[in-house]
Amino acid sequence: MIVFQLALLIVWKLSVIESGIDKLQILKQSLELHKDKLHLTEQQLLVLHHLDSDKHYEGPTIYCITPTYSRYVQKAELTRISQTLKLVPNVHWIVIEDAMEKTDLVRNLISESKLITTHLVAQTAPFEKLKDSNPRIKRHRGVEQRNAALKWLRENLVLGRDKGVVYFMDDDNTYSIKLFDEIAKVRKVGVWPVGLVGGLNAEAPIVDAKTGKVTGYKSGWLPNRPFAIDMAGFAINLDLVLEKVEATFSYEMAKGMQESEFLSFFTTKDQLEPLADRCTKVYVWHTRTEKPKITGNITGLEV
Amino acid sequence: MIVFQLALLIVWKLSVIESGIDKLQILKQSLELHKDKLHLTEQQLLVLHHLDSDKHYEGPTIYCITPTYSRYVQKAELTRISQTLKLVPNVHWIVIEDAMEKTDLVRNLISESKLITTHLVAQTAPFEKLKDSNPRIKRHRGVEQRNAALKWLRENLVLGRDKGVVYFMDDDNTYSIKLFDEIAKVRKVGVWPVGLVGGLNAEAPIVDAKTGKVTGYKSGWLPNRPFAIDMAGFAINLDLVLEKVEATFSYEMAKGMQESEFLSFFTTKDQLEPLADRCTKVYVWHTRTEKPKITGNITGLEV
Repeated sequence: MIVFQLALLIVWKLSVIESGIDKLQILKQSLELHKDKLHLTEQQLLVLHHLDSDKHYEGPTIYCITPTYSRYVQKAELTRISQTLKLVPNVHWIVIEDAMEKTDLVRNLISESKLITTHLVAQTAPFEKLKDSNPRIKRHRGVEQRNAALKWLRENLVLGRDKGVVYFMDDDNTYSIKLFDEIAKVRKVGVWPVGLVGGLNAEAPIVDAKTGKVTGYKSGWLPNRPFAIDMAGFAINLDLVLEKVEATFSYEMAKGMQESEFLSFFTTKDQLEPLADRCTKVYVWHTRTEKPKITGNITGLEV
Repeated sequence: MIVFQLALLIVWKLSVIESGIDKLQILKQSLELHKDKLHLTEQQLLVLHHLDSDKHYEGPTIYCITPTYSRYVQKAELTRISQTLKLVPNVHWIVIEDAMEKTDLVRNLISESKLITTHLVAQTAPFEKLKDSNPRIKRHRGVEQRNAALKWLRENLVLGRDKGVVYFMDDDNTYSIKLFDEIAKVRKVGVWPVGLVGGLNAEAPIVDAKTGKVTGYKSGWLPNRPFAIDMAGFAINLDLVLEKVEATFSYEMAKGMQESEFLSFFTTKDQLEPLADRCTKVYVWHTRTEKPKITGNITGLEV
């Protein structure tokens, strides 16, 4: 009987010092190690568990797919995005280089980020690159890279076992960490506004006040697309991505139709889940970084 | 019997750990308990929280001075910078709006960042704004704003009591969190390379391999300035800022000479402390965000 009282005392004391969380973890482990000897009740064990539960994140893994290519601002952009992801729990960052081989710059940056990552390469077909040396101007960007990531997901994750949400996260946008709380809510396909895109201050789904459903889109550019939604404006449940194996990106799509055609594999307009406070908040911006004017190089310096 | 001894041992260990918890923790709890009676402000509670979470951090407070002005990408830029600073211990972020009055956008963003902040306003003199409506093009940017921050430091901090380093952190650059480890090392004036500035891949102090001292500067633009160093490429110990009260920025300085003239108040070239691995690493990039082409607005949406 005294053991039971002692155990209760311990649990109570644990609550008292709950704020010393790092130490709590060690205590919890040692108590669990001896729980049989101490005859802790189920309830006591539950209390013990909950004391520590704040540290445990219950949401799905967010698979962030980031195509990237070599250019002056690449390291700056990837640094920025990796630091944003450090503030988000349970992210798996998939970075796909448009290159023949993985580069040291990306390899080191990913490794130093201490994030869970997958590093892939997929080179854009040469015929898709215009004669202009700026690869931004080619007709479709990121096609091979996003497809490589989709392939990786389908080959390495298992429907029913792995839970997650898939988000295409280009390296030049700006992301508020609030966005990832929204992404974690996605059951099938979630949508939200994207700032500074399509000629307006934002591109946003129109949500019916009564039904809470998406009825159309506000966009300064082709608002009548089936889904007038930027790549940064939606996320898809991993289950759907694993089920619809035929859903990929392609060069055959008309200009600006990548998102619409891809989303059509998974959902219809009235099934969309409007997030970010019914699409009234902007948590991601389609910022573009100026190409710097550089006429010379300091050698031996990775920039 | 052994169970009883084990339990006793655990209770004893709990008490040891409990008493070992930083006194700050107890202080924090009792203050939070009485916060209503004490009328603690949100900012005071935040400081309390940071004192507690940074209790293992021994470095100085880094005072980051960020001038900002209203434009389409402002919220995106400030979101990005605030999220970077969340990863840095012991930062005090001073944000100065170029505006008549504090705006809700900046006020809310700062408050939601949960950083220790000071929010100021200082309006740029109208004669300094060119007829061109783009305020980027005016002759000197950030003069009044940086001076307002210096004034705040000198009025609110006390030489000898407050320890820190002062860094001018514009809202459009890209910052690796590694930079702040370097800034924390500054004893008088620390310098390091800045990526993508002055027409080269980077602007960098030249460090003599034998003496470890700065002997000159690599820059694509006026390398013979007394200090050919971008605003993002140096930090100054708070002691010096509090001592040299005459050091301010001014419209009288020649184009591109703000940094040189300001640094001349505090140091000479041979006293500079070359950081970032003897100025061989780039931890900050002078990125510029493209001005988005926006022809219409969705109303009621803060972007």
